[in-house]
Amino acid sequence: MKIKVLILNCTLKYAPEVSNTEALAKKAVKLYEELGATCEILRVNDYNVRLGIYSDEGKGDEWPKILKKIKACDILIIAAPIWFGVRSSVAQLVIERLDGTYEEGDKKTGQFPLYGKVAGVIVTGNEDGAHDVASNTLFNLTHLGCTVPPNVDTYWVGDAGPGPSYIEAGGDTHPYTNKTTRYMVHNTLFMAKLLKKNPIPTNLKKLTEEAFAYSKQKEDTKKDYAG
Amino acid sequence: MKIKVLILNCTLKYAPEVSNTEALAKKAVKLYEELGATCEILRVNDYNVRLGIYSDEGKGDEWPKILKKIKACDILIIAAPIWFGVRSSVAQLVIERLDGTYEEGDKKTGQFPLYGKVAGVIVTGNEDGAHDVASNTLFNLTHLGCTVPPNVDTYWVGDAGPGPSYIEAGGDTHPYTNKTTRYMVHNTLFMAKLLKKNPIPTNLKKLTEEAFAYSKQKEDTKKDYAG
Amino acid sequence: MKIKVLILNCTLKYAPEVSNTEALAKKAVKLYEELGATCEILRVNDYNVRLGIYSDEGKGDEWPKILKKIKACDILIIAAPIWFGVRSSVAQLVIERLDGTYEEGDKKTGQFPLYGKVAGVIVTGNEDGAHDVASNTLFNLTHLGCTVPPNVDTYWVGDAGPGPSYIEAGGDTHPYTNKTTRYMVHNTLFMAKLLKKNPIPTNLKKLTEEAFAYSKQKEDTKKDYAG
Amino acid sequence: MKIKVLILNCTLKYAPEVSNTEALAKKAVKLYEELGATCEILRVNDYNVRLGIYSDEGKGDEWPKILKKIKACDILIIAAPIWFGVRSSVAQLVIERLDGTYEEGDKKTGQFPLYGKVAGVIVTGNEDGAHDVASNTLFNLTHLGCTVPPNVDTYWVGDAGPGPSYIEAGGDTHPYTNKTTRYMVHNTLFMAKLLKKNPIPTNLKKLTEEAFAYSKQKEDTKKDYAG
Repeated sequence: MKIKVLILNCTLKYAPEVSNTEALAKKAVKLYEELGATCEILRVNDYNVRLGIYSDEGKGDEWPKILKKIKACDILIIAAPIWFGVRSSVAQLVIERLDGTYEEGDKKTGQFPLYGKVAGVIVTGNEDGAHDVASNTLFNLTHLGCTVPPNVDTYWVGDAGPGPSYIEAGGDTHPYTNKTTRYMVHNTLFMAKLLKKNPIPTNLKKLTEEAFAYSKQKEDTKKDYAG
Repeated sequence: MKIKVLILNCTLKYAPEVSNTEALAKKAVKLYEELGATCEILRVNDYNVRLGIYSDEGKGDEWPKILKKIKACDILIIAAPIWFGVRSSVAQLVIERLDGTYEEGDKKTGQFPLYGKVAGVIVTGNEDGAHDVASNTLFNLTHLGCTVPPNVDTYWVGDAGPGPSYIEAGGDTHPYTNKTTRYMVHNTLFMAKLLKKNPIPTNLKKLTEEAFAYSKQKEDTKKDYAG
Repeated sequence: MKIKVLILNCTLKYAPEVSNTEALAKKAVKLYEELGATCEILRVNDYNVRLGIYSDEGKGDEWPKILKKIKACDILIIAAPIWFGVRSSVAQLVIERLDGTYEEGDKKTGQFPLYGKVAGVIVTGNEDGAHDVASNTLFNLTHLGCTVPPNVDTYWVGDAGPGPSYIEAGGDTHPYTNKTTRYMVHNTLFMAKLLKKNPIPTNLKKLTEEAFAYSKQKEDTKKDYAG
Repeated sequence: MKIKVLILNCTLKYAPEVSNTEALAKKAVKLYEELGATCEILRVNDYNVRLGIYSDEGKGDEWPKILKKIKACDILIIAAPIWFGVRSSVAQLVIERLDGTYEEGDKKTGQFPLYGKVAGVIVTGNEDGAHDVASNTLFNLTHLGCTVPPNVDTYWVGDAGPGPSYIEAGGDTHPYTNKTTRYMVHNTLFMAKLLKKNPIPTNLKKLTEEAFAYSKQKEDTKKDYAG
C-alpha cells in the first residue's frame, strides 16, 4: 500500500531563502521514503494564497492547487516555525483556509474531505513555543477530520531567549528531536495504512440529524412544561 | 468486543455538590452504553491525589487507585471545567500525575501504558476557553500514548462574560454540543475497537536507540571535521 | 494632553466587506473620542504587508506606513477575529512584523520603539477563543515595550459552536462587552496620560550589560573551580 | 516609598525539597532588595489551600492567610514551573482562588482588591512552555486588577525535550534570563511606585451601570422597531 505524505512548510521566508523548518522536514522525508512512502514538501508561500475561509477565494488565489494536494495525501504534516511563542502567520493562514472544507462534506456520510487522513506536526524555533504550536495545530486538524496517533509532533527549539536556529545550532544532532521524528514517521505510517484498510464509518450527517431532533424535542418539552 | 470508557471528572467541586461537567459527561455515558460500552465517571477530587509527577507519591496518595483504572480502560476522557480561560487545576493535576507513566514503558517496545488507548475531552464553562482546554489536553494525551480520532471534543460554553453554567443555561438542548457528543462517542468507539484488533507495533525503544546512535555519529563526525 | 489611539483591524476580510471586529472597534472609538482622544482604525489588509520579521521587507512592502502610525500613537489596540480558537493570521502577521522594532532600540536606553505605549485588545468571533487571542496578543505587546493596564481586553463571542457573528447576533447590546469596552477605554487613557508625564526610566542597555557581565563572571568562576 | 513584593512559588514540590523555580525567584529577590524593596517568597503548598473559587472555602482552608499577604503587597509575582507545556496545577489553583476577589470590589469604585498592584511572572521548566505560562498568567492578573509593565516575565527553559532543570543546568549563568530578571525588577518597581502616587481613578461601578443602561436602551429600541 503506497502512502502519500504531504508536508506544508509554513516558513515566513520566501524561496530560495534557507528554511530551518524545511531542514527538519527533510529529515522526516528521508525516513518516510526509506519506509516506502511518497513525500512532497510544499513551501506555502511559493503560492499566492489569499486571506479567507473559502476553498477558492477567486482573483488569482492559488490555494485550490494546494488543497488538491491535501485532498490527495494520506498523511498531512504542518511544518511551522514559532514566532512570538505561537505558530507562524502562514500556518494560521493554512488552517483558516481549510475552514472551507467543512462545506465539502460527503453527501452520504457528511464526512469532511480530511476524514481518514492522519496528521503530524514539525516545529522549529530558536526558542519556546513548540507545545503551543503543536497542540493547537493538531487539535485544529482533528476538527477538520484528521486522526492524531501518539507522538506525532517533532520539534527543535533552543533554550530560553533568542539564539541560533535549527541549522546553525546543529539541531541535526539533537537526540530528542531525532527520536521524536522517528516516532512521528512510524506512528503516522501505521495509522495511515490502518485507516485506509478500515475507513472511519461514522455518519456525521445522521448523527447531526439525531442530535438536532433530540435538542428540538427537549426544547419543546421544556416549553410545554413552562406553558 | 467490550470497550471500557473511563471519564475523569476534573471539577473543582467536592461531592455531593452538583457538577455541570458531570451533567454533560452523563450524556456521553448514556450514548456509550447504548452502543454497548461500559462506562465509569470518576470525580477526581473524591480521592486524595497528592501533587507530584510520580505514579505513587506515598503518604496516603490515592492516585494509584485512579491510575489502575486508567490503565484498565480503552477510552480515556478528561472532563474539565474552564477556569480563567484554561483547564481546571484538577485537570492539570491529572496530567502532571500521568508524567509518571513515562517511566513505566513496556520492556520490549518501550511503549508507555497509555499506548493503544483512545482519548477524548468534555469541557464546560460559563464562557470562553474550550478550545484551549481541549487542544492542550488532547495533545498531552497523545504524548502519553493515546490516539485522538477526529471530532472527539465536546463542549458547552455560554457567550462572552460570566453567566449561567451548562445545567442552568439549558445546555442539555444545545444542538452543537449534542452533535459533538455523538461524534465523540462514535469516533472514539470505532478507534478503540480498531486499535484493540490492530495494536500499534512501533518499537519506541529501538527507534530511540537508532536516533541516539545517529545523533552521536553525526556529532562525532562534526568533531572530526573540526579537529 | 492629546492622546492618539491606533486600532489595527486584523480581519481576514478585504474592504469593503463588512467586518464584525470593526463594528466593535467603532464603539471603542466613539468612547475614546468622547473623552477627547484622537482615533484611527486601520484595516491591515488594505495594505500590502509582506511576510517577514524586519521593519522593511522591500519590494512593495507597505508595513513601513503602518509602523510609522504605530510609532506615533500612544495607545495601540489590536482588534482581531478568532479563527480556529486563536488570533487571525493577519494579527499574527502584525506581531511578527513588530519583531523588527527590537532592532530599533534607543541609543542611550535601549528601549524599543513601543516603550511607553499602552496596549489593549478587541476580539470578536462567533465562538470560543477570546482568552487565547487576548492573552497572547497582550503578552507579545509587553515584550515589545507596551504597558497593559487592568481590564483592557474587550470581546464578544457567541456560545458553543458556529453561529452568527457580532453584528448579526446583536452583540451591540451585550452588557458584558459594553462594560469591558468602557473599562478598556478608561484604563488605557489613564495609563497613556500617566506614562506620557512619567516616562519609564529603565535603561535596558545598562541592565543588559550588567546581566551579561554577571553571567560571564559566574561562568568564569565555575570554570576556575572545575579547572 | 517602601514597596512590598510577594512572590508565590507554585512548585509541585513540598518543602524542604529544592525548588528550581525558587532558585530563580531568589535572584529576583536579591535585586529587589538591593533597590530597597521588601520581599517575601511564599511556597503555596506549604499551606493547605482547598480547591474552590471563593476567598474562604472553610474547613481548614488556609488560602485566607495567603490572600491577606496578596492584598498587602504592591508587586505580585507568580513563580511557576512548566508541566506539559503549561503552568503547574498549583499556579492554576492560585488563579482560581483569586476568582473570589471579584466579589470584594470597593464599595464606591467597584475596583477589585488587586487594582493598583503590579504583576510579574517567573517561569522555569526543563523545556518549552514559558510563553504559554507567562501570557495566561499575566493576562489573568490583568483581569483581576493588576497592571503589567513591559518585560516583566523572566524565565529559564532548556532546549527541546527533557533535560536538567534550572539549577543543575547552570541556569544561574544564562545571560538572557539574568537580563530579563533585571528588566522585570526595574519595570515592576517603577510602575508600583507610579501607581501608588497616582492611583487608577476608574469607577468600574459607574461604567458598569452606564454600559448596562446603554445595552438595555438599545435592546428596548430594537424591540420597539420589531413590535
